[in-house]
Amino acid sequence: MVTSGTESNLIANTTNSATYLSNTVKGRTSWNIKTTTLAKKTINRIRGIVESLKISPNPEKPMIPLTIGDPTTFGNLKASSETMKAVMEAVESGKYNGYAHSQGHEAARRAIAKYSAHQSSEEIKTENIFITSGCSSALEYCILALAERGQNVLLPRPGFCLYQTLVEGLNIEVRYYDLLPEKQWQADLQQLESMIDENTAALLINNPSNPCGSVFSKEHLENILNICEKYYLPIIADEIYEHFVFPGSQHIAVSSLSRNVPVLSCGGLTKRFLVPGWRTGWIIVHDRGNRLVEVTAGLRNMCCRILGSNTLIQGAIPAILENTPQIYFDEIIDVLHENAKLTYNMLKQIRGLNPIMPNGAMYMMVGVNIDQFPEFKDDLHFVQEMVNEQSVFCLPGSCFEYPNYMRIVLTVPREMLEEACSRITQFCEAHYKVDNSIIESNLLNETY
Amino acid sequence: MVTSGTESNLIANTTNSATYLSNTVKGRTSWNIKTTTLAKKTINRIRGIVESLKISPNPEKPMIPLTIGDPTTFGNLKASSETMKAVMEAVESGKYNGYAHSQGHEAARRAIAKYSAHQSSEEIKTENIFITSGCSSALEYCILALAERGQNVLLPRPGFCLYQTLVEGLNIEVRYYDLLPEKQWQADLQQLESMIDENTAALLINNPSNPCGSVFSKEHLENILNICEKYYLPIIADEIYEHFVFPGSQHIAVSSLSRNVPVLSCGGLTKRFLVPGWRTGWIIVHDRGNRLVEVTAGLRNMCCRILGSNTLIQGAIPAILENTPQIYFDEIIDVLHENAKLTYNMLKQIRGLNPIMPNGAMYMMVGVNIDQFPEFKDDLHFVQEMVNEQSVFCLPGSCFEYPNYMRIVLTVPREMLEEACSRITQFCEAHYKVDNSIIESNLLNETY
Repeated sequence: MVTSGTESNLIANTTNSATYLSNTVKGRTSWNIKTTTLAKKTINRIRGIVESLKISPNPEKPMIPLTIGDPTTFGNLKASSETMKAVMEAVESGKYNGYAHSQGHEAARRAIAKYSAHQSSEEIKTENIFITSGCSSALEYCILALAERGQNVLLPRPGFCLYQTLVEGLNIEVRYYDLLPEKQWQADLQQLESMIDENTAALLINNPSNPCGSVFSKEHLENILNICEKYYLPIIADEIYEHFVFPGSQHIAVSSLSRNVPVLSCGGLTKRFLVPGWRTGWIIVHDRGNRLVEVTAGLRNMCCRILGSNTLIQGAIPAILENTPQIYFDEIIDVLHENAKLTYNMLKQIRGLNPIMPNGAMYMMVGVNIDQFPEFKDDLHFVQEMVNEQSVFCLPGSCFEYPNYMRIVLTVPREMLEEACSRITQFCEAHYKVDNSIIESNLLNETY
Repeated sequence: MVTSGTESNLIANTTNSATYLSNTVKGRTSWNIKTTTLAKKTINRIRGIVESLKISPNPEKPMIPLTIGDPTTFGNLKASSETMKAVMEAVESGKYNGYAHSQGHEAARRAIAKYSAHQSSEEIKTENIFITSGCSSALEYCILALAERGQNVLLPRPGFCLYQTLVEGLNIEVRYYDLLPEKQWQADLQQLESMIDENTAALLINNPSNPCGSVFSKEHLENILNICEKYYLPIIADEIYEHFVFPGSQHIAVSSLSRNVPVLSCGGLTKRFLVPGWRTGWIIVHDRGNRLVEVTAGLRNMCCRILGSNTLIQGAIPAILENTPQIYFDEIIDVLHENAKLTYNMLKQIRGLNPIMPNGAMYMMVGVNIDQFPEFKDDLHFVQEMVNEQSVFCLPGSCFEYPNYMRIVLTVPREMLEEACSRITQFCEAHYKVDNSIIESNLLNETY
């Protein structure tokens, strides 16, 4: 602390207009107020990319945004009446206006433990549950409690850009492992393993996946667990889309498959209950033999920072989780599955596109053979011109660190999606160019 | 990235039981999973101190906790019917389930700008308002955007312990400036000024104050602003208790007094609208001549981390702020003021105690002349034994970095407060010891 020779600067501190001598300059010398590295490096990649596009939709065609990850935008998918009733009752009761425990209401945590029993062969204790301000905050706390400057975390590519947003501002190194489209977006395990070193703090998996819509099989999860066990690596499992799987697939919580690898599972009401704005997420710490004691204490500390999520919703959580009927979820899955099939069937007929049929979540990734659209230099250029000509907007794969793809959101109303696919067809047909050199090469091969 | 010689480790990544060779050890070698410095150093001082006390309340007397900062605990202070109606309507409308803008709903920000017009002679623009998950998150973002490792911030002592909780985990140095009880808890400006150096990132003021219940005068705020102007120091103003002032005092927003010093004002619904659990706070950036352009951009980035606060409440904010009548606020102030007078009048008659009459907020600080209670070694010991004998619990001043005081919460029902003051009287009378050496010394002085 600087103390010497400064008290004399302030001549009269109790009068209205204090007079100062300026014989000692020790503070700032101008209003040059910088922000911090954290604030500067906390970057939303999607926003940056979208803002860089030169977009002016075709005024003759109404805009169809297939970009929006908010499933409630178009009004076709709604929160259940049970969900809304539970919140109304929580408001009416007047019992949920005060502060909650910093980890969340005990009754809400009990309900989450019961709702999440499939995640573990062991009983989930309420002290290992942390209710957070959205799943974003759950992910933030897991990362903040596990990794710091000088360490690295393994993130999926393509992957939800928030992971990078949260990590990079902290000077934690990001190492991307690839998800392989030709293997239904399974992780490239050889590559993943090759990236691990003594500074690797955690492996983050997102299952089901945004943006891929993929669902990992039991076998694949077991292979991932084997690697984590070998390298003593805890898993951060972003399972916000758990149960969001199409018929024929099954969601398996990675924590349910291992008695050795500790898992921090992040979930919430956001997607399954169609209330993303409510900011109600949670962390479930699946410790395995007291390996996360210190980390769990760290999470408990972190909860003191902003004191969790809205208490009205916390008051409603038990009723929301217990009363929402299976048919509600089934109907939403049905809408998404039908939309996925429609989109896949229409887009797979388009020359130059390569849609990958999803097994869950709310998204589809579509490969763009950019060489076959020689007017466009990359996926950014492709999606930009598709907006400008057809007023259909898809997020470019670059938003997910995966160029030459685009992500389509499957939550829009069916007729809108059908119209969008038609326009995508028109756009691609107009710009597709047969690569003559390949044809010539093939002809050559056929001849000889 | 580590890549060499590792791909061969994984023999079969697509079978159920992958077999690994362990010829290369490069990751962790045990399940020794540490948490981070941030998580370890994010410490809630109050919790630590309270847990260190050996408390077992007197079973013959019902417990009276004068510790609880949640004004809704006892049911005597309630959110207004207008507030509850606004939220009911927001829920019923079904319009507020989706994601909001990461800075918050535009309509809510417009309403906050109007509600806060007294804070500035200039128009408050919605782009300079950030709705956050409680005022805690508002304070966190201001600190994260202004200060980082190697810098220091000036915090009040006594002061709300969250500031330290938020700052210390980031390896930012805390420098405490004293609030002076003999001057109605004005800041010691000479000392404050003496602490400033080129690494001082911000001055945090809390006005009205928790735990002091003090309200800074216009003159005092102007003196603070003079220092900030001299050293080019931005102010973080925790004004969550704004308007919480007793008759005869006036709350003046520090931002309203200067056209030169940039101020980040933190507020919210929490205290004034008696809904702390709703986690609805906000930052208003009062820039002065584009001095906070970079910091404001940093705040905008930070909002991408957890995407703000609950949207149902955001939907209700315009109606809450516009419809809650003045009489509602007046009645709450009246309750607090009457409680403050009752407590002050009862405690000032107790030998060994020195209550400081507050001018606002919800708290009173009471000096404990610990030398006059020789059975107790400090304020911690004093409050501990008061619980054990009288079942009255006050937070020791040490929770606020200010030993030999205790903080009394003024939001409890009047009869409970009266009973508590009686028991405090009994406790002090039982343990007060006249300091004979002082009396003898006085007698000696009188004789000669």
